[in-house]
Amino acid sequence: MSFSASQRIALDVMGGDNAPLAVLQGALQAVAEDGPWKLPAGRVLLVGDQAVIHAFLDAHGARERFLVQHASEVIGMAESPATALRAKPDASINVCVKAVKSGAAGAIVSMGNTGAVVGASTLGLGTLAGVKRPGIAVTLKLTQHPITILDMGAHIAPKAQHLVQYGLMGAVYARDCLGIANPRVGLLNIGEEASKGTDLLKEAYPLLAASKFDFVGNVESSGLFKGVADVIVTDGFTGNVVLKLMEEFSGFILKLVLGELKAHSVQWGPEALGKIKKHIDYAEYGGALLLGVQGIVVKGHGRSDANAVSNALVQALRALDAGVNQHIVQGLAEAGATVES
Amino acid sequence: MSFSASQRIALDVMGGDNAPLAVLQGALQAVAEDGPWKLPAGRVLLVGDQAVIHAFLDAHGARERFLVQHASEVIGMAESPATALRAKPDASINVCVKAVKSGAAGAIVSMGNTGAVVGASTLGLGTLAGVKRPGIAVTLKLTQHPITILDMGAHIAPKAQHLVQYGLMGAVYARDCLGIANPRVGLLNIGEEASKGTDLLKEAYPLLAASKFDFVGNVESSGLFKGVADVIVTDGFTGNVVLKLMEEFSGFILKLVLGELKAHSVQWGPEALGKIKKHIDYAEYGGALLLGVQGIVVKGHGRSDANAVSNALVQALRALDAGVNQHIVQGLAEAGATVES
Repeated sequence: MSFSASQRIALDVMGGDNAPLAVLQGALQAVAEDGPWKLPAGRVLLVGDQAVIHAFLDAHGARERFLVQHASEVIGMAESPATALRAKPDASINVCVKAVKSGAAGAIVSMGNTGAVVGASTLGLGTLAGVKRPGIAVTLKLTQHPITILDMGAHIAPKAQHLVQYGLMGAVYARDCLGIANPRVGLLNIGEEASKGTDLLKEAYPLLAASKFDFVGNVESSGLFKGVADVIVTDGFTGNVVLKLMEEFSGFILKLVLGELKAHSVQWGPEALGKIKKHIDYAEYGGALLLGVQGIVVKGHGRSDANAVSNALVQALRALDAGVNQHIVQGLAEAGATVES
Repeated sequence: MSFSASQRIALDVMGGDNAPLAVLQGALQAVAEDGPWKLPAGRVLLVGDQAVIHAFLDAHGARERFLVQHASEVIGMAESPATALRAKPDASINVCVKAVKSGAAGAIVSMGNTGAVVGASTLGLGTLAGVKRPGIAVTLKLTQHPITILDMGAHIAPKAQHLVQYGLMGAVYARDCLGIANPRVGLLNIGEEASKGTDLLKEAYPLLAASKFDFVGNVESSGLFKGVADVIVTDGFTGNVVLKLMEEFSGFILKLVLGELKAHSVQWGPEALGKIKKHIDYAEYGGALLLGVQGIVVKGHGRSDANAVSNALVQALRALDAGVNQHIVQGLAEAGATVES
């Protein structure tokens, strides 16, 4: 093996609506010789029910490509995160976090209970040096280029300095993992002038303008589709409203479209629909990334299929190998950011 | 005439991207004998450049169907509202407000500068008894039934009691004008539990639950498409983000759809596209309604065509005739709502 243990990705085999099967299939896909991406053997640590994992791997003759760590418990998608995390110390997500904490892995990928993934990671791993508030970033392809929006719900009442950190973390991620040399950072607002918006946004604007990254000013929600920024900073409440709205709205419109096509007896293949959905499905870029914790944490959709799991593993691999977290720490140190919690 | 002067609608002929022509055409359409709606002659007071208005009416032989009030000035779509309202006392929107204030009309319809319409109306007309903060309501057809969302941007940092008033005003409007006998009111939030969201929302939840209208609890943004509420209450910042996002997102997806159809050589008539757009275009229900001021104020899209202007006139007529404002005052008095500004 030409990599260290801390470059391994702990995959929560038991988390998600389609776990464990779709998760295991996704892992297999990610390491497949003939797949679009190929993760080296040994980089994925499968965490979950050992008997189930071994049976799956044996059936596919893939035992030697993975490491396995047994976890005897599972946190269900509908369980209360805080309660479940305490009540089930050997839950697969808790075991993933322990693996990163002990240095047996450097990243976590989970399709499980969002609150449990974010809670276990934030509390268990701690924040990166200089980071006071982790943020959840998702990347969408609303224009020809990927756009990364954060925070999508880690923290619903941030302070201005937290928004500035989100800007830096998002810019580092966009540069390191999405190939955008000099990411433009915008602040989600209801008007473009610096004087617009809530007190929080009015306070954040000059701080963002004084930052080292390329701050392009306020961006209205309609601007998400205009390619004016590569990273959009917002509070976790607004971000969560925006994300859920886009997810449901796209399905709503496509349903109307299909209804009209049917009414006009137009045949339309599912592959065309799939192409459109790709623009608004962040599973294309893997999952939501919890930025600011000591480790790479990718949280995929609960409903992820094998393909989405594979994408999430590749995303985690890239973030690890690119050194996103090291660059965030470095960037914050350079900015001399002192942030009140 | 079987109606009083206060039942007249002052139409801002000079406001909007397509003014004055589309506005005048819309007025003509609204009073047309063979139109889908017919406003009685004399109910619309055309406010604007008298020479232009008379020339149009004469060309259509329609002089006797309208009242006309000259206004010598116009506030452009891009002008700063506060400055323009002061600098142009005889601007068409100011003259509309004066008409309502003097009792020459009871409603205003304008496609003009949003800030100018809201500012002139709020300051010029004053709020209804008991109302501390007017809210902007828009109605969309996201399910089989209309859904009314407020506030869409009148007040970006409301207090909990303001949100409760929005709930009552929205419910009265939905009942009086949209034919919903017992409107269900929901609070836009990032989770359904009462404990979710910002401090503002946590404070508003029990107040809404204690109100006389049918409060159905928190509704996530994805819930807008699920028919779980008829009225959605939110702060003006979030509401504005949601509205602009939906407007732009629908166009974005439809563009992708058209691109795919073209790539597959599928011919698709504009009428099918139009049908889909109707679901996400609040012009179907007229315009945005400024609820809580002493008078009915409908603000249509700047880009409104004649059809949208006609819809907005019908919407104002219904709200006037249904006594929406009287019912809001009555409802607030019954609720014994005491609101701090």
